[in-house]
Amino acid sequence: MPKGTLREVKMEPSREMADRLDTVDELAPFRKEFNLPAGVVPLNGNSLGPLPAAVPGAVAEAVRQWGERLTRAWNEDWWHAPARVGDRIGRLIGAAPGQTMAGDSTSVQIFNAVVAAARLRPDRRVVVADAGNFPTDRYLTASAARLLGLEVVEVPMGDLPDAVDRHRDEVAVVFCPAADYRTGELWDVPAVTRVAHEAGAVALWDLSHGAGAVPLWVDDDGVDLAVGCTYKYLSGGPGSPAYGYVAARHQDRLDLPLTGWHGHARPFDMAGVFEPAPGVARARIGTPPVLSLLALEAALEPLERAGIEAVRAKTVRLGDFFLGCADRLLDGLGFEVVTPRDPRRRGGHLALRHPEAAAVMAALKDRGVLGDVRGDLLRFCVNGLYVSFGDVHDAVTALREVAATDEYRSPRFRRREVVT
Amino acid sequence: MPKGTLREVKMEPSREMADRLDTVDELAPFRKEFNLPAGVVPLNGNSLGPLPAAVPGAVAEAVRQWGERLTRAWNEDWWHAPARVGDRIGRLIGAAPGQTMAGDSTSVQIFNAVVAAARLRPDRRVVVADAGNFPTDRYLTASAARLLGLEVVEVPMGDLPDAVDRHRDEVAVVFCPAADYRTGELWDVPAVTRVAHEAGAVALWDLSHGAGAVPLWVDDDGVDLAVGCTYKYLSGGPGSPAYGYVAARHQDRLDLPLTGWHGHARPFDMAGVFEPAPGVARARIGTPPVLSLLALEAALEPLERAGIEAVRAKTVRLGDFFLGCADRLLDGLGFEVVTPRDPRRRGGHLALRHPEAAAVMAALKDRGVLGDVRGDLLRFCVNGLYVSFGDVHDAVTALREVAATDEYRSPRFRRREVVT
Repeated sequence: MPKGTLREVKMEPSREMADRLDTVDELAPFRKEFNLPAGVVPLNGNSLGPLPAAVPGAVAEAVRQWGERLTRAWNEDWWHAPARVGDRIGRLIGAAPGQTMAGDSTSVQIFNAVVAAARLRPDRRVVVADAGNFPTDRYLTASAARLLGLEVVEVPMGDLPDAVDRHRDEVAVVFCPAADYRTGELWDVPAVTRVAHEAGAVALWDLSHGAGAVPLWVDDDGVDLAVGCTYKYLSGGPGSPAYGYVAARHQDRLDLPLTGWHGHARPFDMAGVFEPAPGVARARIGTPPVLSLLALEAALEPLERAGIEAVRAKTVRLGDFFLGCADRLLDGLGFEVVTPRDPRRRGGHLALRHPEAAAVMAALKDRGVLGDVRGDLLRFCVNGLYVSFGDVHDAVTALREVAATDEYRSPRFRRREVVT
Repeated sequence: MPKGTLREVKMEPSREMADRLDTVDELAPFRKEFNLPAGVVPLNGNSLGPLPAAVPGAVAEAVRQWGERLTRAWNEDWWHAPARVGDRIGRLIGAAPGQTMAGDSTSVQIFNAVVAAARLRPDRRVVVADAGNFPTDRYLTASAARLLGLEVVEVPMGDLPDAVDRHRDEVAVVFCPAADYRTGELWDVPAVTRVAHEAGAVALWDLSHGAGAVPLWVDDDGVDLAVGCTYKYLSGGPGSPAYGYVAARHQDRLDLPLTGWHGHARPFDMAGVFEPAPGVARARIGTPPVLSLLALEAALEPLERAGIEAVRAKTVRLGDFFLGCADRLLDGLGFEVVTPRDPRRRGGHLALRHPEAAAVMAALKDRGVLGDVRGDLLRFCVNGLYVSFGDVHDAVTALREVAATDEYRSPRFRRREVVT
């Protein structure tokens, strides 16, 4: 590694070691609960988790309900699905029931949450936010701020406490991600939440790259509002509904801009004026995409059964093994590890910088190793629920072969795809 | 009929007549393209269209793509699905390609459209809107107006031209539904659009209860912006994604509040500042719910093949037959027809007022006749694509039996369900 500090590796990172670790891995049986395609090393679960084996049947059942029960299915099952799925996600992020609602896209949830968070501090005009947050978070924060006449102060996470302090009496909202979408670096949710609260601000978190990868404790940490995506570590499927968390103490004065009729206190009264439902039900918006929502519900089951702590522990071991393999196999090939080596500061994916990241990833994909690219970073997700140590060894070995032979310089890996 | 004016019925509304009409119905074969449950009369397609026979396979294929192709499916199929499905919906509403985008819920589309419409007239402060529009339209208009500092003037459709005239130089947006969600009354899209334009305002339409039921010509009518729902007359499935239409002439200065990363000019550059994509692509928001979106896509095919004009013509005949049956069978039983008898003023559903509408509908459902209730109105959808004349006769006969025998007064039909 040219720039990373070499970390003492307690095991010899080899194929034999990978096989040995897989043999003793108590979570190994969970791999069979995902329909992984043959010949593929699935290290892109930070972008789209693989298909849980229970999902095809659950989706077929949802389609059957539609066909056979028609509108009657709303009363029999569907109407309560957003709250039911929300509560199940809530358990994974440390939220007691009645505070998490599933629905809509992460972008929509972000807009709703930023406006509502700012309205909890109507006398304050500043949002302090992570400058490294995922772009859609930044775009929607800017849009919400423009509508409300707020100033957005974007700073790197390291400078955030100072920035909050500088704007101490003006900060309405502090908005950060639980993990950096580029490097996988884990941020300190309780510490930053305390910083926000000490300044009298509301703490809003985007849990997209944290939930399902690491245990979160939004209730214990005093988080005010949170949003998150479900198609990464929750394997809910492409574009599966996002979720919003609203701490119970804020619910009854939560003033959301997306006042859809499903969030009305009595939606079927068809009243002319919006009256928010009690509790987190007001965070419902329009009719949820039921097929995608019920796919997500079925997807949660393996993670719930394995337990987030066990998955996290294995993810840490997989990350250590990845770094060990990288140190041994990638030395001198132009890669730089940008994810913290301290596992306490690492989420579910690791990132390597390479000047030709896109071409390297295209060559990797050609060999069946799936990761993704953000700028000059190659990202590899080591989700302990279904990734094996063998996968990690195969991926780093492929990386070595692609880079050492200049395979990635082939013109066929130069084509730009829409989604990278 | 106690209050409606009796209309001359050119046919004797009987079971025999229904069978004869079904025998000569050229659209009758399309009924087989929907998986209708046995023993059910499906007159609630204005709430949730039935399951098209092609959908289970299409959804299974989308799940297969997820499982086998993982993120690669984004480039192979999914990324372009919102525009592709949008264009197909566009053809059904008279929009040339490149102006319609599928995604998100109708509520979210409404918010986005109201804000963007108002921003097209930044020097004006009034929104004139139909006071009888669907509640979520009214709630989100109020929310958008609050954020932008606009005044909302809600009036019945009949008073709308006068209201626009009264606020002539201040009206930014005129927002109306293509059809009244309660009575099914069809509004005059070109005439109201002209009224808006003559006052210098932007015309925004909610096509939810019109698209798929009646031919619409948004391009020819000069509509500026439109939104719509796809799970009613487009049979896209529970909570299938909605759509937004933006006339080409407005696209490049359309300033949407929901600036999700999928609407960015170069989403995978991960830039820090939102730069809207050219054309209607800026109306994308977050990651769309792919399973629900691809179900919708498959659902459109039978309607496209039958042709909206043919479906409309049969829907008119079904409506005439419904009214003929109602006049003959429901006289003196406390029902009032509130849908216009003139088929040119009627959309895809008919509404009967009854003081015990909820109980009557519960008793009807118990007999397998599915309609729905809004307040004291019973709604029955006569979608020509899959409803038969026999269905209509069965439904009105059941209505007669339920009302004439006081069956609906049974305590078991008093239970309030969440979704009515």
